[in-house]
Amino acid sequence: MGSELELDEARARFVGLYDRLKDELLQDPVFDLMDEARRYVEEMLDYNIRGGKLNRGFSVIETYKLLKDGEDMSEEEFFLAGVLGWSLEWLQVCLLVLDDIMDNSTTRRGQLCWYKLPKVGSRAINDGVFIKGSIHKMVKRYFREKPYYVDLLELSDEIALQTSFGQMLDLVYSHESERDLSKYNMPAYRRIVQYKTSYYSFYLPIACALLLHGEKPENFTDVKNVLVEMGILFQAQDDFLDCFGDPEVTGKIGTDIEDHKCSWLIVQALERGSDDQLKVLYDNYGKDDPECITQVKNVYKELDLEVCV
Amino acid sequence: MGSELELDEARARFVGLYDRLKDELLQDPVFDLMDEARRYVEEMLDYNIRGGKLNRGFSVIETYKLLKDGEDMSEEEFFLAGVLGWSLEWLQVCLLVLDDIMDNSTTRRGQLCWYKLPKVGSRAINDGVFIKGSIHKMVKRYFREKPYYVDLLELSDEIALQTSFGQMLDLVYSHESERDLSKYNMPAYRRIVQYKTSYYSFYLPIACALLLHGEKPENFTDVKNVLVEMGILFQAQDDFLDCFGDPEVTGKIGTDIEDHKCSWLIVQALERGSDDQLKVLYDNYGKDDPECITQVKNVYKELDLEVCV
Repeated sequence: MGSELELDEARARFVGLYDRLKDELLQDPVFDLMDEARRYVEEMLDYNIRGGKLNRGFSVIETYKLLKDGEDMSEEEFFLAGVLGWSLEWLQVCLLVLDDIMDNSTTRRGQLCWYKLPKVGSRAINDGVFIKGSIHKMVKRYFREKPYYVDLLELSDEIALQTSFGQMLDLVYSHESERDLSKYNMPAYRRIVQYKTSYYSFYLPIACALLLHGEKPENFTDVKNVLVEMGILFQAQDDFLDCFGDPEVTGKIGTDIEDHKCSWLIVQALERGSDDQLKVLYDNYGKDDPECITQVKNVYKELDLEVCV
Repeated sequence: MGSELELDEARARFVGLYDRLKDELLQDPVFDLMDEARRYVEEMLDYNIRGGKLNRGFSVIETYKLLKDGEDMSEEEFFLAGVLGWSLEWLQVCLLVLDDIMDNSTTRRGQLCWYKLPKVGSRAINDGVFIKGSIHKMVKRYFREKPYYVDLLELSDEIALQTSFGQMLDLVYSHESERDLSKYNMPAYRRIVQYKTSYYSFYLPIACALLLHGEKPENFTDVKNVLVEMGILFQAQDDFLDCFGDPEVTGKIGTDIEDHKCSWLIVQALERGSDDQLKVLYDNYGKDDPECITQVKNVYKELDLEVCV
């Protein structure tokens, strides 16, 4: 996307769109957002959107630029790509707000999870639903007259549903009543991650840029297949960081081991471990006890999983 | 809608559509719902949809029939109205599943709330999101080629967002950190109920039937205004039942008093009560203590609110 400087400028322009999109939502005539409610929505959006890396959102702009193949992007094109980018960030925020409750997480993006604030609590559930619901409002405002408007709505709906299905798989496998390490293997891992991560984090930004560029969704299959693989690699790295990352850097404290998640590390450890090591894993995985967590991490270290990503 | 018998037959035909719509969702190629996940989704849908009164859904069919003004409904027309009816029931289930968590409810439709089942817990959040996400899938399957397809998507998106905004108002007013009975009055009550109940429960079914009948959404304003009032009446009755209804009949145990909800009863009591009665309300409303709840109910009874609906 050109020089480092151009990239920084484009990123700053993208970030700058947030306030406009937020203000438009707050002033939308479909609700009368006065007084407390207005303050609440604004604080909720700012709190949760702040501190994100914006990789998903910004990659719509980057991809569109690449599709233009050297030709300049007009002001209008940048703006439209930016709106779609922010719509993905909005989706991401909805998913994080809700996942943090379900995973019983404490911190996110270097601060307390939204639901952990005493004044929020389980209201965060409705906040997540509200954020997701407002995405189509944003898309409608700018894309209603575009020939690909319906494709855009359907694509984002379909991927949101697939993501929710992926989340369901993730929870079905890790739920207390059905915990069973013998179900964890690479095919199961790939299936979960394809749905819960790859589609929305990797395929959706690129698909948005392609639609904006006039491409037809029926031609996206090859691109999708490659991006699914990239998503699986990303998730494996994310799983690694959940266990071995520095919370100061990642902004969150991992809970995969105590949550009995089907993470890349446990799948690898189950494939590579000796009988003794497997016994340690079976005895200690999924227990919310520091001693058990340490035992599991020790097996990961013995198997050199700490350094192999 | 004709005789009692015809009505019963139509209702049974409507109920019968559920299995087909559920099976189509379970077999949809956007996810590979095999094994545990398939069983889980099916059980989740059945558990939550079972026992509902289906008033919202069936009223799409009833309204469409009225719009036909005596002309017979074709098989196809009945089916399409039925699909839209079920899409509203799906939305209702999503809202109930999530609201029960936020309101800390115990029972719903005569059984334990979904999130209260030990094997479900906070997974119910994702289940609610999944159910909502699957609505557009159902609509897309049968309406994609209809001239009003985009209107249908936009209408349901807009009303879902307004409902979520109404839920937010409801929670903003009742949350522990901001509890203040002096904010409760009829204008505040009407505003909350318009958003959280009227739009989706009263306006949306009728609007769906109108779209199916070829009417344009820009002409719906008068109808909407009437239906908003019906919704407010309905909610006032629902609030009454929350406090004075028989759980054996309503299928749920009310929590409005301890949840500090802006219910019709408290608004009326605040308008009508003496200074002494107001003091009792201020001292006892919003406390999860049987003695406090009884005190509040006694004031309602003294003010003859138990019999006036």
